[in-house]
Amino acid sequence: MSAAVTEKTAPSLRTGAFGNARALACRECGNEVELGPSYACPDCFGPLEVAYDFPVVTREEIEAGPPNIWRYKALLPVPVDIEQSPNTEPGFTRLLRADNLARELGLEKLWVKDDSTNPTNSFKDRVVACALSAARELDAKVFACPSTGNLANAVAAAGARAGIRTVVFIPSDLEHPKQVNSAVYTDKLVAVDGNYDDVNRLASEIAGEEDGWAFVNVNVRPFYAEGSKTLGYEIAEQLGWRLPDQIVIPVASGSQLTKVDKAFQELIALGLVDDRPYRIFGAQATGCSPVSVAYKADTDAIRPVKPDTIAKSLAIGNPADGIYVLDICRRTGGAVEDITDDEVRDAIVLLARTEGIFTETAGGTTVGVLKKLVESGQLDTSLETVVINTGHGLKTLDAVSDRVGAAATIAPTYDAFVASGIL
Amino acid sequence: MSAAVTEKTAPSLRTGAFGNARALACRECGNEVELGPSYACPDCFGPLEVAYDFPVVTREEIEAGPPNIWRYKALLPVPVDIEQSPNTEPGFTRLLRADNLARELGLEKLWVKDDSTNPTNSFKDRVVACALSAARELDAKVFACPSTGNLANAVAAAGARAGIRTVVFIPSDLEHPKQVNSAVYTDKLVAVDGNYDDVNRLASEIAGEEDGWAFVNVNVRPFYAEGSKTLGYEIAEQLGWRLPDQIVIPVASGSQLTKVDKAFQELIALGLVDDRPYRIFGAQATGCSPVSVAYKADTDAIRPVKPDTIAKSLAIGNPADGIYVLDICRRTGGAVEDITDDEVRDAIVLLARTEGIFTETAGGTTVGVLKKLVESGQLDTSLETVVINTGHGLKTLDAVSDRVGAAATIAPTYDAFVASGIL
Repeated sequence: MSAAVTEKTAPSLRTGAFGNARALACRECGNEVELGPSYACPDCFGPLEVAYDFPVVTREEIEAGPPNIWRYKALLPVPVDIEQSPNTEPGFTRLLRADNLARELGLEKLWVKDDSTNPTNSFKDRVVACALSAARELDAKVFACPSTGNLANAVAAAGARAGIRTVVFIPSDLEHPKQVNSAVYTDKLVAVDGNYDDVNRLASEIAGEEDGWAFVNVNVRPFYAEGSKTLGYEIAEQLGWRLPDQIVIPVASGSQLTKVDKAFQELIALGLVDDRPYRIFGAQATGCSPVSVAYKADTDAIRPVKPDTIAKSLAIGNPADGIYVLDICRRTGGAVEDITDDEVRDAIVLLARTEGIFTETAGGTTVGVLKKLVESGQLDTSLETVVINTGHGLKTLDAVSDRVGAAATIAPTYDAFVASGIL
Repeated sequence: MSAAVTEKTAPSLRTGAFGNARALACRECGNEVELGPSYACPDCFGPLEVAYDFPVVTREEIEAGPPNIWRYKALLPVPVDIEQSPNTEPGFTRLLRADNLARELGLEKLWVKDDSTNPTNSFKDRVVACALSAARELDAKVFACPSTGNLANAVAAAGARAGIRTVVFIPSDLEHPKQVNSAVYTDKLVAVDGNYDDVNRLASEIAGEEDGWAFVNVNVRPFYAEGSKTLGYEIAEQLGWRLPDQIVIPVASGSQLTKVDKAFQELIALGLVDDRPYRIFGAQATGCSPVSVAYKADTDAIRPVKPDTIAKSLAIGNPADGIYVLDICRRTGGAVEDITDDEVRDAIVLLARTEGIFTETAGGTTVGVLKKLVESGQLDTSLETVVINTGHGLKTLDAVSDRVGAAATIAPTYDAFVASGIL
């Protein structure tokens, strides 16, 4: 299963086009196929994932790199000269010690990995940067995605900067502000009369019919997904080359969570961090919680759902990597948990008030699940914990606009201020 | 002229509270007063500015620091242990090589310094972090500001993270989304029935009447303003410890432009960069262009105006540092220029389409002025140029929401896509 770009471009791949990557390996049967725009195993249809032959990589080499994801280029499927190609230079975002939130929740040591300060304000800039590199090396003519939000922003911005023709497909009923936020970067925003599933289907159809299209989350998905590993690398490096004891990660397709685990395993294998146990926890919104439901039912059977939650960027009813999320959370002694939309809203305000970070609904879900995990005793409050914030609250203002506002409205005089009793 | 915090807190200042700062020096008469919450010269009422006794500072020391403004702590009025106090850790934002925009404008070598990826998405996080440090060292009880936008966000977020009581004053007719963007961080957002001038007056009145209030842009302004120097330091370091030949900077109060010049001069004095000529250009929107008007009239007399422009974050009709902006732009061989609101809108889309950066109206003003300076021959197209983007387009979506949108709306079929003629 590979898109039409293969035939034209595979022969002309330059040496080192994918760095230290060796092949695409099937996650199910282990079969390896050559690097290219393939995403499913030709034998068993399992998902393909990038496999590497890593050289020796040292902390010093990494630390001497740029303050973005390319400091980890030796561990990504990108060429050694990746910094020379125009890209959005995402990553190396803040890891903030969160003492106020820790105190509020009853945790001893907590950090927030804040990806809201990425170039287009979500972690998607990381994965899109890796997809862009693959598209370039595969000589793709068009860079594209179906999306309703963060991914559309990231693809449109990265495509503009790279100077590659970029087409973004969205449902036509998407709110105007979200359209603006992608259309500002590209004049090829296509509104599709239908829901997100319809848009997705159309993307797959185009990928099959047209030559030279790189759909970041379809035919170059294995390369795209590797970008999420950088979240794990950064957390370890920013902790002083140490893995956290516990980490809470949102689950949409589940890819991000599996890639953070992959990153931790790679760092251990390369001797860059000590091999010690860590627990991974997955976070979902109750209105779209197929993985959490399966976890709690102690089954591997993930039953697809029709999403109904304000956490739109997590609203994937049939998560492709859900089964791997279950496996990782169980293997590491973590868990998968879910919270209601009201709890999501509460958690957005909680994070803002305690740490000055304005997160979108996905981050609210993750922080809210962290809270629930503490309250239910599933998380060890004495252990060092990291929670990932994947996006920015400016994109989902409506989620809290009824909850916060002016404490008082006063006349412009000192007496009126004193009388207001604000302090 | 000093606020009531002085009396209570000056005696208890700890050693090194303001790092290598020596005193507050009057910009007009040179008179020096001790470090504290003062902002105007007791002799001549000129503005006070932080003066230093710098030790030897090396590139290596700076490069070994954190990826935020505290890598320059030796050059700021902050204590040596500043990283230990909770703050938003702003700065060290991307300096992006902008070849696409350069080509479009006819420039040989152009960079964009992108401050839209700061913690609350504008350069204000830099100045507020320095003001917060001063407030803490002066033992202020309340952290506050009058603002309509970016400053309110930055103060509310920094105050939340620092755990200090934070009060933000805004005009009561401010749009709801902008209120949410500050109120999410603080339960002490005060809406004032009046315009921004009324809010500002009220802030000054409270600063005079109440003990222990640190208004970032009033009584701790000298410390606050120093934060803008970090833009200059970062640009030089990111260019490989070199000053750019030309730089274009937006002008609101004018403080940022003067501080970038101060930063360049300090780097030269410290031997951190070669002493070579550079030109500084100021950017205003025509609807609030008192400095540009004075520049073109070849006078030092800046006539205050009533702002009427979409570039709200630059809409200061009586810019406090306007006279110094004129001096710097003339001394360095630069200029001050202004553009219309329509040109601002065009420039926002131009920057997004060429470099994947979504800027607010202030950044649109700066990029648009860059364009005009090239077209009018005031800028040397063969010289290396930097343009500063101070904020994020998500905060001023309305500016472009009529200009960009879907290229086509289609049925969810491949045939419909082909028929649309998008490609």
